[in-house]
Amino acid sequence: MIERIRSLGGRKAFAGLALGIGDDCALLRTRPREQIAVTTDLSLAGRHFNLDWHPPEVVGHRCLARGLSDLAAMGARPLAAFLSLGLPAELTRTRGRKPAWIDRFYEGFMALAAAHNTPLAGGDLAEAQVAVADIVLVGAVPRNRALLRSGAKAGDLLYVTGTLGGAAAGLDALKHLAKSRPGSRPLAIPKDLEPLLAAHFHPQPRLATGLSLQRRGLASAAIDLSDGLSIDLAHLCEESGVAAEVDATKLPLAPGATLTQALHGGEDYELLFAAPTGAHVPRTIAGVAVTRIGRFKRRRSGDPRVSIRTARGLEPLPPRGWEHFN
Amino acid sequence: MIERIRSLGGRKAFAGLALGIGDDCALLRTRPREQIAVTTDLSLAGRHFNLDWHPPEVVGHRCLARGLSDLAAMGARPLAAFLSLGLPAELTRTRGRKPAWIDRFYEGFMALAAAHNTPLAGGDLAEAQVAVADIVLVGAVPRNRALLRSGAKAGDLLYVTGTLGGAAAGLDALKHLAKSRPGSRPLAIPKDLEPLLAAHFHPQPRLATGLSLQRRGLASAAIDLSDGLSIDLAHLCEESGVAAEVDATKLPLAPGATLTQALHGGEDYELLFAAPTGAHVPRTIAGVAVTRIGRFKRRRSGDPRVSIRTARGLEPLPPRGWEHFN
Repeated sequence: MIERIRSLGGRKAFAGLALGIGDDCALLRTRPREQIAVTTDLSLAGRHFNLDWHPPEVVGHRCLARGLSDLAAMGARPLAAFLSLGLPAELTRTRGRKPAWIDRFYEGFMALAAAHNTPLAGGDLAEAQVAVADIVLVGAVPRNRALLRSGAKAGDLLYVTGTLGGAAAGLDALKHLAKSRPGSRPLAIPKDLEPLLAAHFHPQPRLATGLSLQRRGLASAAIDLSDGLSIDLAHLCEESGVAAEVDATKLPLAPGATLTQALHGGEDYELLFAAPTGAHVPRTIAGVAVTRIGRFKRRRSGDPRVSIRTARGLEPLPPRGWEHFN
Repeated sequence: MIERIRSLGGRKAFAGLALGIGDDCALLRTRPREQIAVTTDLSLAGRHFNLDWHPPEVVGHRCLARGLSDLAAMGARPLAAFLSLGLPAELTRTRGRKPAWIDRFYEGFMALAAAHNTPLAGGDLAEAQVAVADIVLVGAVPRNRALLRSGAKAGDLLYVTGTLGGAAAGLDALKHLAKSRPGSRPLAIPKDLEPLLAAHFHPQPRLATGLSLQRRGLASAAIDLSDGLSIDLAHLCEESGVAAEVDATKLPLAPGATLTQALHGGEDYELLFAAPTGAHVPRTIAGVAVTRIGRFKRRRSGDPRVSIRTARGLEPLPPRGWEHFN
């Protein structure tokens, strides 16, 4: 199996990879005056994905997207990915002519890896009762240039890439479909539902946009939207010691998404960032739309971290969690 | 919980750590002309550890030891550790005055981390049905100086650090004890058994020895003994394109260990390395005994990868796997 995985990456050479799968460690190269960015994300069957609902390629894509999105939020370029997989034995077996679950998982994983020029440089594989995947991404960023959560200042403006709520709208549609078809395993997905599921099935980590923000020095702080705008913006405010105000009318809702999904749905993997008022933030960065959705301000004692301005005026926006599948 | 983990590391500064837990990624620093070494190891309850048999501190120690040992085998110095934990909810809860399982796990983990000056710089935490821990170690090694598996030459001599079979002897004693006390949960361990269990409970990754081998340029190839001498030596031979001959009479057996445990038992986490005949390999490196146990030779077609010389003459030594717990 390890030999099969080793062969998946092909013979392509990667600038950041000196030694890949097959030794005690992988060896990576950085450029002078770079720091190393590292992130790990654990995905569990029944919690982060559902073996009946999500095609294996989608599970592979989503695992890697989580990690790549963390690098994007730092403005880092990927050097290599590492994947530890714990799988029930039946997911590693082929049945007749059908490829095994694990092969389809790697297909989705490697397609996204190739799109971002990221080699799979190592990992681990073990038999487990419940499927589990831990993704590790190692990237590089010029010293003191990483986009941190802690740099937002009162007066800065608040921006977001792409659209919001698309992943939550897709997940809700998927839950609805599963309810209407009990016993359908795997869940058959009608063609006409596919567009609505795209954001949930194939989130696009904003690496080029994050890199561009970092290189141009545009953003004072950044975070990726993994848990939802209301939570992730609260994190950013907390690390920066400021408060934020979101303008509900400015939010770029994804097609089919509600305001609630845009505010509290997780897994959009868009970038949320702060920039000083004087900064010239383009409307499009690396092909991705950028929208101003609010501003940062001083936090007075008793103030909510995050407020939202609607037709009713200014109200607190409490952090409401992403519910995964449980 | 993340805040509690964040506080575990204390306020100590680490040379290799620019930014720890709390942002989208951790940021690490290397020195000029260094490469980055990365390894991940997945540990699963019921497979790599047993919640009834192993005290939580031991599980934490062993998880980290697996990763550190991979860095040792490359001659790398640790920069930081990352830990993804999936745990059943009850393992995160305190009961009365007793600390939670997770707190005792981190105690064992952080004690070994401190001994090797390695910060816990990030990770992930999720609720899981079965306990799972994925350990990631990131280290640094001067460019083109890492100890690889692929450098052994015919004529090189074969060395091992410390003693062999101690971990397997401890595991066998533990299995025997568990069998004799069915229903004892957690398994009460008699004081007089503790010395025999030490190598299994608290394996010592040979970081200082690996670093010294790398700095002195003594070893032509190295691997750590995680799966057992017969398997790991076969890996080293395969990557180097050579064969090896082990002298059974030279093997440094751990107290209480049998020859079979020394040859096929895993998890000793000693270093196995090759050095040219002319190299002056000391008997002790960084306080750890080093023993010459065999030699490398050309592999002719049909030859076994690894042979063993006993009183009966030369016989093939087939790679026999470590059986974990299943």
